[in-house]
Parts: sequence; C-alpha cells; structure tokens
Amino acid sequence: MTLLKDGSPMLSMDAKPYAFAFPLKHTALLVIDMQRDFLLSKGFGEIQGGNLKDVQASIAPTKKLLEACRSVGMTVFHTREGHVPDLSDCPSSKLVRQAAAPNNTQHKLTIGERGELGRLLVRGEYGHDIVDELKPLPGEVVIDKPGKGSFWNTTILHKLKARAITHLIVSGVTTECCFATSIREANDRGFECCGIEEATSGYNDANFKCASLDMIHWSQGLFGFIASLQPLLDILTPLGNSRCLIQSTPPQTPPDFDGDLSITNLQKAYKNGLSPVTLVESLYNRIEAYQKVDPAVWIHLESRENILEAAKALTTKYSDRTALPPLFGVPFSVKDSIDVAGLPTTTACPPMAHIPSVSAVVYDKVLAEGALFIGKTNLDQLATGLTGCRSPYGTPHSVFHKDYISGGSSSGNAVSVGANLVSFSLATDTAGSGRVPAGFNGVVGYKPTRGLISFRGVTPACLSLDCIAITAKNVSDARTVWQLTEGYDEEDSYAKSQIAFERHVNSIGPQATSFKFSIPPSEALDICSHVHRRLFNEAVKRLQSIGGKLTPVDWSPFKKGGELLYDGTFVSERLASLPDNWLEKNRRVLHPVIVELMDKVVARQSTAVQAYRDLQAKALYTRQAEKVFAPVDAGTDIILVPTAPTHWTIEEVLADPIRKNSILGEFTHCGNVLDLCGVAVPAGSYSCAELSGNKKDEGTLPFSVTFLGGSRMDSTTLEIARRFEDSITSRT
Amino acid sequence: MTLLKDGSPMLSMDAKPYAFAFPLKHTALLVIDMQRDFLLSKGFGEIQGGNLKDVQASIAPTKKLLEACRSVGMTVFHTREGHVPDLSDCPSSKLVRQAAAPNNTQHKLTIGERGELGRLLVRGEYGHDIVDELKPLPGEVVIDKPGKGSFWNTTILHKLKARAITHLIVSGVTTECCFATSIREANDRGFECCGIEEATSGYNDANFKCASLDMIHWSQGLFGFIASLQPLLDILTPLGNSRCLIQSTPPQTPPDFDGDLSITNLQKAYKNGLSPVTLVESLYNRIEAYQKVDPAVWIHLESRENILEAAKALTTKYSDRTALPPLFGVPFSVKDSIDVAGLPTTTACPPMAHIPSVSAVVYDKVLAEGALFIGKTNLDQLATGLTGCRSPYGTPHSVFHKDYISGGSSSGNAVSVGANLVSFSLATDTAGSGRVPAGFNGVVGYKPTRGLISFRGVTPACLSLDCIAITAKNVSDARTVWQLTEGYDEEDSYAKSQIAFERHVNSIGPQATSFKFSIPPSEALDICSHVHRRLFNEAVKRLQSIGGKLTPVDWSPFKKGGELLYDGTFVSERLASLPDNWLEKNRRVLHPVIVELMDKVVARQSTAVQAYRDLQAKALYTRQAEKVFAPVDAGTDIILVPTAPTHWTIEEVLADPIRKNSILGEFTHCGNVLDLCGVAVPAGSYSCAELSGNKKDEGTLPFSVTFLGGSRMDSTTLEIARRFEDSITSRT
Repeated sequence: MTLLKDGSPMLSMDAKPYAFAFPLKHTALLVIDMQRDFLLSKGFGEIQGGNLKDVQASIAPTKKLLEACRSVGMTVFHTREGHVPDLSDCPSSKLVRQAAAPNNTQHKLTIGERGELGRLLVRGEYGHDIVDELKPLPGEVVIDKPGKGSFWNTTILHKLKARAITHLIVSGVTTECCFATSIREANDRGFECCGIEEATSGYNDANFKCASLDMIHWSQGLFGFIASLQPLLDILTPLGNSRCLIQSTPPQTPPDFDGDLSITNLQKAYKNGLSPVTLVESLYNRIEAYQKVDPAVWIHLESRENILEAAKALTTKYSDRTALPPLFGVPFSVKDSIDVAGLPTTTACPPMAHIPSVSAVVYDKVLAEGALFIGKTNLDQLATGLTGCRSPYGTPHSVFHKDYISGGSSSGNAVSVGANLVSFSLATDTAGSGRVPAGFNGVVGYKPTRGLISFRGVTPACLSLDCIAITAKNVSDARTVWQLTEGYDEEDSYAKSQIAFERHVNSIGPQATSFKFSIPPSEALDICSHVHRRLFNEAVKRLQSIGGKLTPVDWSPFKKGGELLYDGTFVSERLASLPDNWLEKNRRVLHPVIVELMDKVVARQSTAVQAYRDLQAKALYTRQAEKVFAPVDAGTDIILVPTAPTHWTIEEVLADPIRKNSILGEFTHCGNVLDLCGVAVPAGSYSCAELSGNKKDEGTLPFSVTFLGGSRMDSTTLEIARRFEDSITSRT
Repeated sequence: MTLLKDGSPMLSMDAKPYAFAFPLKHTALLVIDMQRDFLLSKGFGEIQGGNLKDVQASIAPTKKLLEACRSVGMTVFHTREGHVPDLSDCPSSKLVRQAAAPNNTQHKLTIGERGELGRLLVRGEYGHDIVDELKPLPGEVVIDKPGKGSFWNTTILHKLKARAITHLIVSGVTTECCFATSIREANDRGFECCGIEEATSGYNDANFKCASLDMIHWSQGLFGFIASLQPLLDILTPLGNSRCLIQSTPPQTPPDFDGDLSITNLQKAYKNGLSPVTLVESLYNRIEAYQKVDPAVWIHLESRENILEAAKALTTKYSDRTALPPLFGVPFSVKDSIDVAGLPTTTACPPMAHIPSVSAVVYDKVLAEGALFIGKTNLDQLATGLTGCRSPYGTPHSVFHKDYISGGSSSGNAVSVGANLVSFSLATDTAGSGRVPAGFNGVVGYKPTRGLISFRGVTPACLSLDCIAITAKNVSDARTVWQLTEGYDEEDSYAKSQIAFERHVNSIGPQATSFKFSIPPSEALDICSHVHRRLFNEAVKRLQSIGGKLTPVDWSPFKKGGELLYDGTFVSERLASLPDNWLEKNRRVLHPVIVELMDKVVARQSTAVQAYRDLQAKALYTRQAEKVFAPVDAGTDIILVPTAPTHWTIEEVLADPIRKNSILGEFTHCGNVLDLCGVAVPAGSYSCAELSGNKKDEGTLPFSVTFLGGSRMDSTTLEIARRFEDSITSRT
C-alpha cells in the first residue's frame, strides 16, 4: 500500500492482465443483481430454467467481499434489475422473448406475472429484492435498473461521479449477462473496473464464465481487470483492522464527544459508541454560550429538551451501530425560508410568516438520514441581500470578528456552522446567498446546479433562479449532504433529471494528473481589495501546484450574465411571487433597506418587452458559458474566482447598504443566471490591519475562493475544490 | 414473406434460438466499426498485435450483406470508433491501457499517436474511416462513437427512433468487443437484434467468436438472435429484384416525370433514370399555370433558367445514380422569413427586408442533400397570424377552394405543396403557423420539438417559442426532411442536444399492437364547427381501429398553456426583437391588421413582473404536460386534436381579422409554449355546404387532425401519425 498526496491509500493487487491499482477513496464496490429472483428457488431465474447451483456459488464469496469492503469504508453500490409495476419500462422484445419460443413449455411465467416470490422482476416485490445475506446497509446506494446494463436509464453514472468514483470492483450475477454488460458500459464511461472471479456466477458457468472473464482482461484489459477474491481480502482485511473504523467490542463507558463536528468524524464516533445524547449535551452548552457572543444567529432554536428527545429517539430507532444512516445524530440548522412543519417560516419578514403543515423536501431528506434538527437561522429579509445586515432579527457578525459582516442572505446558516454549533446547514442561493456568507465565516458554501435538489417547500426569492445551498465544514461534508438530498422532484417545475446525458468522461480521475482552470481577466479582478487580490493570486498558484493548468477564458458571458441579475429586469421576479399591492401594504413593517430596494425596482417600470429581451440574452450567455465548460479544445474544467472582492464592516454596510451589497456579488451573480454550480472554499486568512490599512486593527478574517463549474458538472467542480482544500489542510 | 397491414413486407429467416421475424420498413442494417484502423495493415489493431487474418474474414460477407440490404432499400447505419483530435472524449483508462502493461514492448503507439494511416483512432484521419469496399452511400447514417458500445455518447438511439427502427441486423468488428457490446445496448433499449455470423469477426476468433455469439442467443435469446448470411441473402435478393428499386441497365430514353412529387417516388424515379431537367421542365409549366389560379403564393420565384441550371449542376455533381443523396432533385420552397443568401428576406414586411450573405442553417442542410430550390413563399406579415390574410404580397387561398383561406402564417408554403408545385417546404411555427395552413391545404405540417432543427438565419417572431416546421405531402416525407435537417447547433441558444436521455423504450414497435391516445374534453371541442366535430369523432374511431386506446387526460395544462400565448405577456416577445420605436416609425407601411394587433399589445403595458409570473406558469404547465406524456401508469403516447376548429372564408376573416385568427389557434397555441411536438395530418374532407349550411355552396374542403406529442417524443408521435395516415390511404 502506498499513500496518495492526500494521505489516502493507493492499493494494488494481483490481477489479469496485470496488477490492478486502485485509490481506496475513489473506488466503489458494485454488486450486480444479487436478487432473490435470480438466486433463489421459485424466482424468475429458476422459472426460466436457470441452474441455481451454478448461480448460487457466488453468494458466499460476495458476502466476504462486501464485508471486507465495508470494513475499510469503501463506497458500495448495489443494483437490482426489474420493472415498474405497469411494465412500461420493459421493452416488448424482453417481455416476449421466452414466451415466444416455439413449442414453449418451459417458460410458464413471464416478467410481470405472479410467482411464489411475487410478480417476476417487478419493483417492490419480495423476489425483486436483494438476498438477506447481502442486504444493503443504510447509506449504500441501490440502483434499480430496467436493463441488463446498469447504465441504461438509471442514475448510476450521476451517482458514481457525484462520489468521485473512478475505480470499480465488480461482482454479481450473471457473469455473462448483467455483470459483463455493466463492466463494458463502465469501461466506456472511463471507470477502471476489476471483476472478482469467485464473486460472480451465472446459470451456465461451464460454457460462459471463463470466456466472459477472459474477454474482459484479454489484450491488456479490453474492458478491465479480473482478480481472485483472496488477494483482495489480503489487502483489505489488515487495512480494515488498522483503521479501526468500528471497534470490535463496544467500549464499557461510551466515549465523550471530541468537539469535531465534521460528518466524517461524527460517523466514526457514533460507530464507536458515542451517544447522540452526549453530543447534544455538549453542543447545547456551546450554543448557549454563543448566544452571548452573537444573539442574532437563530430565529428559532429548539429547546434542549426537544433535541435530547430527538437524540434519544434516534438511539432507539437505530440500535445497530454497524448500520447507522449516514447523518445519524448529525446536528444541522435550516435557513428560515425553508419550511419545517409546525414551525413558522418567517423569511425574516414577519408579515410573510406562515406555519407550514408539510416540511420542505430537502429538510425531510436529511431528517430521513438520521440528522438532528437544531433550529432555524437568521437571514436577510426575503432572502434578498448578501450582507447579513437586513434582518429584523438582528445582525449576525462574522465568527472571525464582531465588527465585520457575516454575509447574507444565509447569514445565520454560515455562522452556525462557522461557530461550530452544527455540522451543516441548509441554505438557499439566488445571487450568492449560499456562497458569500460561507466565505465570510471560514466554511464551505456549495450551490449545486439548480434543480438537482428540490426547492419545494421554500419561500421563493426569485423562483426561476433560486437554488438550495449547503453550508458545511469541508467539501467532503458538503458533497455528502448533496448526495443525500438531491433527486428529481417532478413536483418542482425547475427540477432537472439525474438520468441525464453526461458528455464528460472521468477527466478528473486519478489517472488524470492535471486539470484546466480559468480566472477572470485582470480588469475584472480590479474590484478586489488589495489583500483579496493578493490572496487570490496565491490561490491561483496553489491550484497550479496541484496540477491546474491556467487556461484563457472569455469572461464576457459571465460578466454580462451577472449584470442581468440586478441591472436588468430579473430582479422584478422577486415581486412576481408577491401579491400586487404587497409592498404598499407592508411598507411600514419591512426592513427599510428592502423597501428602498423594492421601490427602486418598481420605479424602473420594467416592461415585459424588456424582460423578454433579458431572457434572450440569458439564453445566449448560458449557451456561451456552456461552451466554456465543454470538454473539447478551448474548454476549461472550472473557473476560479474570489468568493467576494472584499469584506465590509457592519458599519460600512449600514452607511451605504445597497452599493456595498452589490459589490459583494461581483463574482457570484452569474452563478444561477447561467445555470452554473459553485462551491466557496476557505483559502487562508489575513489580518484586519492589512484590509483596513490601519495597523492598530486587531484580528484576522477569512479569505475564500469559489470554484464555478458548468451546468451539472458538480462532480468535477467538487473534486477539484476538494483537492484544493486538501492541499491547504495538508500544509497547515 | 407476409405483408403487414400497410403492405410492407414482414420477413422471417432461420436463426438461433428460433426464427427471426422482422418488418423490412422498421429494420436497419448496423455495420459496426469496419474501419481501416481495425482491418488493415499498419492500423491501430495490427499495431496492438491483432490478428488481421481473423478480423478481415468478415469484409467480403459484410459486402454481400450490405449490397443485399441496399437492394431492398433497408436503412443502413455505420459506426466508427474514434476520438476528437484533442482526445478529450477518450477516458484516461482507455488511453493508457496498452502502454501501461508491464514490460510493454508490443504496443509502441497508443491512441492519438501517428501511425502510417494517420493518428490512431482519431476522427478525420485516413485510418479512422471505413474500408473502401464498405464505403457508406449518401443517405446512410454514419455514427462516430467514442466507446466500444454504439450507444454511449452518440446520437444513434435518437436517429434509430427517428427512423422508426425496431429491428437491427448487426455485423462488424470485433465480435467480442464492439459488436457484442452494441447488441447488448440495443437489446436493453428494446431493439430486436440479429447478428450475422459470417459478417462479424475479431482478432481472436478461435477463443471468443463462438462464445460471444452463443451468449447472444442462449436462453431463448438473452440479447437477441444469430443467423447465417445465406438465409438472409436468400430472402433479400429475390425481393430486391422484384422491387426493381434500380433497374439493372439504364433505359435508352430517360423516363418522363410521372407527376408524383413525393420524395419516396422521386428517389425511385431518379434512380431509374429520370433527369432533374425533365422534372423541372414539367414542374415549371405547372408553377406558371398555378400563378394564374393563385398569384399570391410566391414572394420570390426562381427563373426557369436558374432552376434548370441548378438541375444540370446536380446531374453533373452526382453522376452515379446508385449513390444519389436523399433529396437529389427534390424541389422545395422556403418561407420568406428564412434566409437564402443573396435574396431578400422580407418576412412579408418590406421595411424589414434585408439581403443576407449567409443562408439559414436549415436551408443549407437541404441543399447539401441535393434538393432543388424553387422560390420563397408568402406569409402573414412578421410570421404573425394563422389566416394567410395579412400579407402585402396578396392573400393566397386554399388549394381546395378559392373563397377559403389558406391559413397562415406559412400560407405560401402549404399552398406550394398542396398545389403540387414542390415536394416539401421549409416553414416556421410559433403559434401554429406550420400546422394550420397544412390543415387547410390537405398536406402534412410537422413542427418538431423546438431546438431539434437550428433556427439560425430565420427572422424571429417570438424567439424563445419559434420553431422550424416542415410542410410535406405525407408523414414519411416530413420525417425524411426532419432527419436530414435536424442536428445540434451550438450557435442557436435554444438548440437541444440529440445525445439525449431517452426514457422511452420502443413502445411503438411492431411488437406493440396498441398505443395510448387522449383527446381534449367535450367542452374544449365545443369551439369546433359541426362538421369539424363530426370528422374529429371519425378520426378518433379510426385511431381506435388501428390499436389506439383512448385514455383520459387532464386538459388544463394544455388549455392554460395555450392561453398564455396571446392572453398573457408572451406576445410582447414579438416586440422584443424589434427596435424600440420600430412600430411608430413603420406604422404607415405595415399591414393594418398587424398595426392593430401590435397597438393592442403595446396598450396592455405588460410589466416585467407579469412576464415573470407568466414564465413561472409556463414552467409549471410544461412540467404537467411532461407528466401527461410520461410512460408510466396514467401517461399517454399522443394527444389527438383537430388542427383547426373550423375553416373560414377569406371574407369572414377580413370582416373580423383578429378574433377569427385567435379561434384558429385553439388547438395549436399550446404546442411551443409547452415544448411539445406536433404533426398535422389530412383526415378526410367535407362539402362546403356542410360547413356553411348553404346547400348551394359547391366544393369540398380538407379536414385535418394534429398529433401532439411530448418534448423530444417526435419519433413516437410521427410513427402513430404515419399509421393513421396509412389507414386512410389504404382504405381510399
């Protein structure tokens, strides 16, 4: 075993045609179709005349393989072949194949007909599910596929890429059919595959197994590698023991909480016996203490009793510590424009407050993964603003310095993560609301491509440009929360499908030692403070030092796209979700800066004709941006920008609230207009004195860069951001 | 051989595991990767140590197969494996596979490096192209693929479905790799595949060929069928001879033009020796004669001399009548809002006229396929209107009756096809401009899903809703023109990729004996004239008689989506492409109805806020419509509507131009708003007396129905429309 630059293991084992080397962090185990319908008596396979003895041979080896992979924390994917109950995803050729055979006597039942294990190959039926021995654990991905290949009409490509997987260890049934087909598909898409000989089998192994495996590794690995199980167990087992992911016997006294709220650490701590109750007691003390430092973080804070009760309920619900859901006991906060059933959603605007009976989809998803809800955080009124200074619930300040703004609109989100009160936070981002405050509090702010996470149950700011954002302690945590919350929601008009065309091969896999990045031209960076400019240049050098190749880019679509947001008519959409006379009616109870801003929008008297011109321009710039991120020739993988050009004091913003706000969005405004994704990542710190020019000023402030990526290019963007973050963490 | 209901042959041949039955019309020959790089000395295959003798064995049988398939007019697809010159579509694992082998001495050159046949597996290089013996003919589809499978990252699924292909005869190299992988992929997507044993080979046939083929047909055809070449030749050769698609020796005197302008007929006639010059002489007489019947068809008509010259040039350019491009000598017209370099584009609005130096993309595409440009046709001014009565170049009338409107805005297009002056016409459709006039002239009007055909080089009406439309003599012809003109244009901001996710399996294949359709509710149909309602009911019955299952549908998104077009702010986009003071400046020279309409739009003073509300509503209705066409449960395949609810006389329209126009769009308005596709198809005729209630009224008028399909569901929609059309043609 060798270690990669980031300290993660690079493993290698004997295989055909030559040794298979794989980076543990980027490798997934793929278990194909180990379903009762294929493996058990009375299932689809036996009914079609399949030889059960042959096919069952792989169950026990696969169990060993699965356990070894789990012991080292490897990502696990399972697939299940089957169809929706009305069989509309089953081609007629597949349906009639066996029954159409002349003199058919053997095939008495076809797909969709009811056998003793339920309707054959139909989702939701007993026979369709995975055999007990190999039952997926919470957090493992299960892909339902209508075809023999795992990649046709499924989300598997999207989900593998989202997890930065580049290497696959493949097992399952049947060797000649779904196993071999899936390896062929994965190979075309750039995954390095290694099939495990003992952990795959079929109904006709005497004739097909050897040839199927030989074709995979023939000619220096036509489709990939084939290895035996034992060499793999030999390297994984000692690693699993040494990593001690799970202690073999629970400790006598449950361990204390070590204070590290990162999701990875909490997952490990809970597996090793930490109780969520212990965490809550410790955490709530910290939350109470921070109330004195900054009383403007929360609009609603759950009581200690409520959270303790929720923690106890979790402990009861998930009693097996080897099968905890990924967010078990992970504390999180929610921006107060996101619905939580039974609590008021204020959007920091009391006249808009309502008590929803249903929670937002994104909230329900994290709750279903075992997360612990702590409270609802402050924000700029109507989620309009980037400063954090526009709320009737007070003005939070940066966790770095009480005189400096927290950023907005997701002010409380970023502070709650930055002050170590929660592990992550659910925010929103229209003009930069998820990125700017992350930058001002030294945490990660990730805004996925719009439509990947459902926006249902969230008060809109500018509906066609709104996006859920995730605030987290590091890029990996942000990625984890994204993976657990994304998914097509057909009730969200702006949702994007994840069964999507992906033009891009795995260009950012470990085989690729370099990537391309671009930066705005010098004149666009002139808006930055001196220190922001200096630190941005350092970030550029850092990115080059980890393999980034600086590539020229046409910045104009990003500049013009960003300008559309406030200089054009798009800001009128903020009024579109409100009743016509709403502003007049509520003028007196609104935040004065919001009133001033809205009055300016109204005074423009923007016409529908202007709106349609802006939309045509948006379509043009979006297409131009798409070409910038195209894989060929002049394309780039990501654009690096400063998250914000400077960091204002609260006093500076209060003195000049609209202009100061606008400057902060210089590098974030284009994100949703052009359908990009973006992740803000801490990139060092600087002294307040360097920013103000006054040597007496004490304290330091965080610097942040944002990685902007193309539409749906979230996986690549996050992976480059993670490498950048790693390079900082490993140096400090 | 048996005949299907539509008279086309259903063939069957011996195969494993049992006879392979295939409908000729829906079958394509797929020839995989017969490239120099794989088959010839000094190519990629040999450089990697491949056994050329084995792999070359399939060249001669494939040639026989290809010729037999061509002789019966079968659709032919070729694939080529290779990469773009910068290799950005080549996964790193594929690039390093051979070179990474330990002690590598064998593989001196890898993908992208230069060998004697050019850079290995790189598009555009000599070695990348298909061997001379199997060179594709014009009109055959060549798919460039980056993977081993033909379906990853290519347009092949889209293009097979566009041609209504359900069965594949597969050949090519290598058997164990690209041949077998492509069959596996095709099988998952619902295609019935039959591999031809002699017409496939690999580098290691002793070990892999037999097993690869056995896996395909094992277990009643796990992935498909395997047949020998001879049985297939035995059924195709006599059929090819009997069909006489090409006479074996050219006739002594070139044949006369038989008057049938359908593309299929012209293709056959040209192959049998008809000269385009003969066609032009005959056609031009007809065009001149029709000028007396209706002088308002053309805004620009090419001179007889010009067209004759173009016809002669075609004859010189394509001297081999066995290798003619699909639109060789096919006459067409162009709506005068579509640019033809060097001719004025008037959009029936003299103050807008300009002479472009570059033709519209769609025009260039048909010209490149050998089509003959005849002239530019009349339209409602600014492509705004559905009547045909809003042009300064006169008012064309229906080819059925001089008192009745032609429909608009593509008035001249539909008349030029309906009066048999051209084979097809390029039109546009925003609110129904490609469908309504087709309906009023007894021809087919097809509006693909927006963005599939480039709109570049066309004067916009309402840019974000504009769409190219095709007017043709029948559904098959419209489909042919669509296939030849569509394609992603990255310079068109609204273009859609064809390398797209397709959720739908081949539900409309010949294996499927039924399909689902829906109709508007009774109250929505009340707007129809009595006779239109009667004939619509007949069309419903006809559709049921050919396997259509009437399925309930929620009509409200279609109704509300349609209303957005003129009752909301969308009509303001028509002003967005014009300079601000344009209307005032040109008021006196514009058509009075257009001025009245524009004045009304301006008088509404639509605001940007209203526009954004409309756009949010559009997003919602579009999503709702998408669910209607989803394959599962309550979904439907198409919605059948009357193309127009009635047919006005010119006099009626002139008396009440705006209201009468609006009624005509009742069933077309929603098409582009909801991102649907639609095809208007003749569905009988009726007496003028029945419409007017005046028994003295002479003449008949055409009735038309439109098949509305979901976004990108063009293939299914066209196939159902074609079956409907067939059922009428075969009865009359």
